[in-house]
Amino acid sequence: MRAAIFNGPRDITVGDRPDPAITDPTDAVVRVVLGCVCGSDLWYYRGESPHALGPIGHEFIGVVTDVGSAVTDLEEGDFVVAPFTFSDGTCPHCLAGWPSNCANGGSFGNHGVDGGQGEAVRVPFADATLVKVPGTGHDEATMRSLLALSDVMCTGHHAAVSGGVRPGMTVAVVGDGAVGLCAVIAAKRLGAERIIALSRNPARQALAREFGATDILAERGDAAAEAVMAMTDGIGVDAALECVGTNQSMATAFAIARPGSVVGAIGAPHGVEVPIETVIFRNVGLRGGVAPVRRYLPELLEAVLAGAINPGRIFDFETDLEHVVDGYRAMDERRAVKAMIRVGSVN
Amino acid sequence: MRAAIFNGPRDITVGDRPDPAITDPTDAVVRVVLGCVCGSDLWYYRGESPHALGPIGHEFIGVVTDVGSAVTDLEEGDFVVAPFTFSDGTCPHCLAGWPSNCANGGSFGNHGVDGGQGEAVRVPFADATLVKVPGTGHDEATMRSLLALSDVMCTGHHAAVSGGVRPGMTVAVVGDGAVGLCAVIAAKRLGAERIIALSRNPARQALAREFGATDILAERGDAAAEAVMAMTDGIGVDAALECVGTNQSMATAFAIARPGSVVGAIGAPHGVEVPIETVIFRNVGLRGGVAPVRRYLPELLEAVLAGAINPGRIFDFETDLEHVVDGYRAMDERRAVKAMIRVGSVN
Repeated sequence: MRAAIFNGPRDITVGDRPDPAITDPTDAVVRVVLGCVCGSDLWYYRGESPHALGPIGHEFIGVVTDVGSAVTDLEEGDFVVAPFTFSDGTCPHCLAGWPSNCANGGSFGNHGVDGGQGEAVRVPFADATLVKVPGTGHDEATMRSLLALSDVMCTGHHAAVSGGVRPGMTVAVVGDGAVGLCAVIAAKRLGAERIIALSRNPARQALAREFGATDILAERGDAAAEAVMAMTDGIGVDAALECVGTNQSMATAFAIARPGSVVGAIGAPHGVEVPIETVIFRNVGLRGGVAPVRRYLPELLEAVLAGAINPGRIFDFETDLEHVVDGYRAMDERRAVKAMIRVGSVN
Repeated sequence: MRAAIFNGPRDITVGDRPDPAITDPTDAVVRVVLGCVCGSDLWYYRGESPHALGPIGHEFIGVVTDVGSAVTDLEEGDFVVAPFTFSDGTCPHCLAGWPSNCANGGSFGNHGVDGGQGEAVRVPFADATLVKVPGTGHDEATMRSLLALSDVMCTGHHAAVSGGVRPGMTVAVVGDGAVGLCAVIAAKRLGAERIIALSRNPARQALAREFGATDILAERGDAAAEAVMAMTDGIGVDAALECVGTNQSMATAFAIARPGSVVGAIGAPHGVEVPIETVIFRNVGLRGGVAPVRRYLPELLEAVLAGAINPGRIFDFETDLEHVVDGYRAMDERRAVKAMIRVGSVN
């Protein structure tokens, strides 16, 4: 099969990889229909984080082409969403609702595991990992939103859940990347009354407003914090969602979070120092992390299929598998929020 | 009146201060019956944290001797517990349940505000701050427990609440000071099934067991973390309560907290670096801070009066006001867990 291969920073090619096959009875093989490039893929693309050489891409939706003998809930032809991590569903962490911390799990497109930026993927623990999409003939907008469920929509939701977003709250979203925009969707869906999106990019500002942001702030750093405090009568927001992973974005989130609130953080951290004095002396908590996508998928899949949320709108660049590197480049140069890779068709 | 005065590190004397008097109509004046020395008092005593020169001590119980014209819920002769912070009860933070972050509040025994290590205290926002103790003739054990409600018992409770302790959980308490021991009480009261107390001091180990600890660990640092992981089948604890405030204790708490859990932290931070990689990649949250004592007081006061908890057992050293420095010394030299200062009588 053809698949994207990471050879080192700024060196991604598409080459031949062995066709995935069932190796464990709990495996399934999935033919990829749509994949995409994640903001977190840029960290290794830019050489800012290590990544194993080999297959890449952790987000995909596709069609089951083969199942192992122990797979009971899936069959050939099923159309599925894959969470970006696989999980056994039976370890203590999975049972407690944290499949992304599965004791026997891992993520796609790393350490030799097939990636979503390729024609097919062997999925371990298929029953526990994959979620079947009901119905057929989903339109293009729905397909894109299903793809967004693989990571960014569930991750934005995790930021909002971690920050304790509830109806009536004032929420600030720090970061206007795909996850930040999905956090706006999630905050709106969870009932936030006022959503302040921090963004200085006109296209992203427009998308944030479409997703439910009531206020847009172009300021950054101290100026952003001052503006939010002024907008909230000096109180701060009921939940600050940190969707970047830099020290500045974390500092901003803590600066605008009201006492007793929780910063919901999902950005992969790069040089982040948590302001512990704010934690202790202002009672501002910190929760978040690698989203338990598999846990959130049923609920958010239902919302997508009902048309209640439309996270697929974040894909503003499209290419095919052979040109996947164009997607990396477009995102690296901030010409695109998120690049979709069209790999195959459902039928 | 006589009161303890901080003149600089390791220089505490007892001298004359003006008798407190009503200055605002919402004030009350309280004659101190019992005060004490807090573990956090040691930070400035040792010169490790700054502190304004002047009155000290933020914990006390006593009798109301005068009230301002706007005080409606208290009268002369009322026996009261004072939270270690005063709060107006009407600002947005108070209304949200965070009186220790009151926009117009402060703490006793700092910046010229009367301290609990003195004969009397002017209490701002008396109705919103003080809690009246029902009944009369409380025995010595009850009096000591009422004093513990002023800070340490409510602070230990805040660690447990922040860590999300619920019935059936396995909880670890890092730190065997007065607050750590109160966190054991709180975890037990909230239904924890297994409570692992980290302590290497025989007297504190015994008290931890008396308070409900089911397991005692004398190890520290990596060895402690390894031991807890071994005791929990490699899963980690459902809640880790950080009751020290050092980098090592915070690191230990994060190392033993299972994915999806929350570290409940109340130690005043000194050189603490939050392990952000653990927050994000293991989904371990961090909550806690300066305890909202006034919010917890009614519930815990009831528990003390019912004999359900007995936090006054932590006082293992006693002196009078003129010898308050002996209490600091006993705690500084770890000869005492917590020193009580007998200042006056209820009647």
